[in-house]
Amino acid sequence: MPSLRHAPVADITDAALAQRVQHQLDHKTKPLGSLGQIEALALRLACILGTETPRLQQPQMLVCAADHGLAARGVSAYPSDVTWQMVENFLAGGAAVSVLARQHGLALTVVDCGVAHDFTPRPGLLIRKIAHGTADATTAPAMTLAQCQQALDNGAEIVRQLPGNVLLLGEMGIGNTSAASLLLSRLCVLDIADCTGAGTGLDAPGVQRKIDVLRQVLQRHAGATDPADALAALGGFEIATLTGAVLEAAAQRRVVVVDGFITSAAVLVAARLQPAVLQRCVFAHRSGERGHALMLAALQATPLLDLGLRLGEGSGAALVWPLLESATRILAEMASFESAGVSRAETPEAGCVVKSA
Amino acid sequence: MPSLRHAPVADITDAALAQRVQHQLDHKTKPLGSLGQIEALALRLACILGTETPRLQQPQMLVCAADHGLAARGVSAYPSDVTWQMVENFLAGGAAVSVLARQHGLALTVVDCGVAHDFTPRPGLLIRKIAHGTADATTAPAMTLAQCQQALDNGAEIVRQLPGNVLLLGEMGIGNTSAASLLLSRLCVLDIADCTGAGTGLDAPGVQRKIDVLRQVLQRHAGATDPADALAALGGFEIATLTGAVLEAAAQRRVVVVDGFITSAAVLVAARLQPAVLQRCVFAHRSGERGHALMLAALQATPLLDLGLRLGEGSGAALVWPLLESATRILAEMASFESAGVSRAETPEAGCVVKSA
Repeated sequence: MPSLRHAPVADITDAALAQRVQHQLDHKTKPLGSLGQIEALALRLACILGTETPRLQQPQMLVCAADHGLAARGVSAYPSDVTWQMVENFLAGGAAVSVLARQHGLALTVVDCGVAHDFTPRPGLLIRKIAHGTADATTAPAMTLAQCQQALDNGAEIVRQLPGNVLLLGEMGIGNTSAASLLLSRLCVLDIADCTGAGTGLDAPGVQRKIDVLRQVLQRHAGATDPADALAALGGFEIATLTGAVLEAAAQRRVVVVDGFITSAAVLVAARLQPAVLQRCVFAHRSGERGHALMLAALQATPLLDLGLRLGEGSGAALVWPLLESATRILAEMASFESAGVSRAETPEAGCVVKSA
Repeated sequence: MPSLRHAPVADITDAALAQRVQHQLDHKTKPLGSLGQIEALALRLACILGTETPRLQQPQMLVCAADHGLAARGVSAYPSDVTWQMVENFLAGGAAVSVLARQHGLALTVVDCGVAHDFTPRPGLLIRKIAHGTADATTAPAMTLAQCQQALDNGAEIVRQLPGNVLLLGEMGIGNTSAASLLLSRLCVLDIADCTGAGTGLDAPGVQRKIDVLRQVLQRHAGATDPADALAALGGFEIATLTGAVLEAAAQRRVVVVDGFITSAAVLVAARLQPAVLQRCVFAHRSGERGHALMLAALQATPLLDLGLRLGEGSGAALVWPLLESATRILAEMASFESAGVSRAETPEAGCVVKSA
């Protein structure tokens, strides 16, 4: 019995629908399969939304922010103050995710899930603060189970308030690559050294110190092996809030666009609680952060972009957005061989049979 | 002395400008280099357009179509009639490139460079037909040098008539992966088997037959080793027209967005005639067509997408378009550490020096 409450996420496999969509794709005026991952994406979007004519509506970029007690242990190249400063930057429109969300018409919601700073309330900012940062996980669980439950509930409630059928995931939190590395190591039983990277820009000795700290944390919480206990002991408020958001979005059959290493950690936890979550996910990109490749492999995910991004914020999810739009347009707007009067291939591998023009 | 006339393309290296743009990027509110290839793209666009504030204006998708005498040798899975049928499909708005150009507001111009069909003139279609398809290159040069010159001139003239500062390259022509493979093999001195793929969908014996035909062609034109002679003997009217378009666009310092295998072949020829052409190019994607990886390596190109596309038409160039827009917006709209009041990294690797908040 899971120790945390959350929405159940049903299996949405529909072989008949998938077959109809694939048939549509295969009859478009192009060699069979020649739009590669765009075709797989179109199929996935159709299956998530449960229709041969998927339409993406009112996409929501949700950026969850929080601070981490572990940051005091020198696991990041940046000071914790950057978390609140970047929240201000998101809201002022000057951060990468602000620029990209504006470019693509993505509604941007920033959530204070537990930043060590008190914000002036304003439009676009939701205050769902659990505490002024998590506890230092070298000495105590990052959060109590009650706090973790509250964060999950917050995430679910936020999604219920947001319109649309697409949720794009973003985050900010100095120290949160550490939390993501810890969750990856614990839930996938991988050595922490393989899961730990430079984050915002540690040098090699810095990464080694980070690994040493994270190894201590894992020893301190050796018993926290189930997803809920691991999330509470090792996670962050923003990761737990995102986990709740992902579970609720998945329960509602929204498309979930996963950004980089941190948001993938939230999806990893959500998928361990409810495996059918992964049916709803589109993975935006392969991050340059060490550990993300292992994370993607654990999630059996094929990301769309591989641009060496390691910024987070939701920047990769925003960058990939037009490809989702393209996939639905290809499905909706491309002509078929029949409708366009185009001859087919002379070999079955390429398409179908010859039709004389 | 080159045997074909074309515009000279000057070296536009400007180390001082590049340094200023890099400085701007490095002071944006993000860890150093954390936007990966998007940063490299922003730098490239700035250098092509010669300004720290590049603005992409009136992007033009140019789709050049023609037929190939070699198609009679069974080198394609599709009949030659598909070339003209797909031109009709482009103009009717039902092809992949039509859908994607519409999505992104790219003006679409289709050029009949030598299709074996007579089109009814209409808006969006330029008739620059050299002949009803090239000659069968197993028995004669695909085109005469005079025809090749005419195609180059046509491409240059078309670009001079088109507004804007970005040219996106597309093509259509049953048999044109063969022409591209031949040019790659000849100009890069690679075995034709390594340069030849399934095109629109040949099976394995079909690919072997294609290789055998292409090997014959190379033997027949063993003397056509300089770029101009190779283009005339082995190329296609659409590839030669694209080559002229690329040279003119490069001479004007337009951004040239290269699609897949065929348009890369046009760029390869253009770059052999005028190496500084490559300074103007953005490579959209790594095609699933065998040979494209070798082509990109020969051009020292790092493509942005790797989605298993192998459709051509300009579909990959259209799909990558929003990333170019993102790169210029990141440069223009993102805040700096100073302007946003965000603290900097505590290690020089990540950014700069500490500034207390």
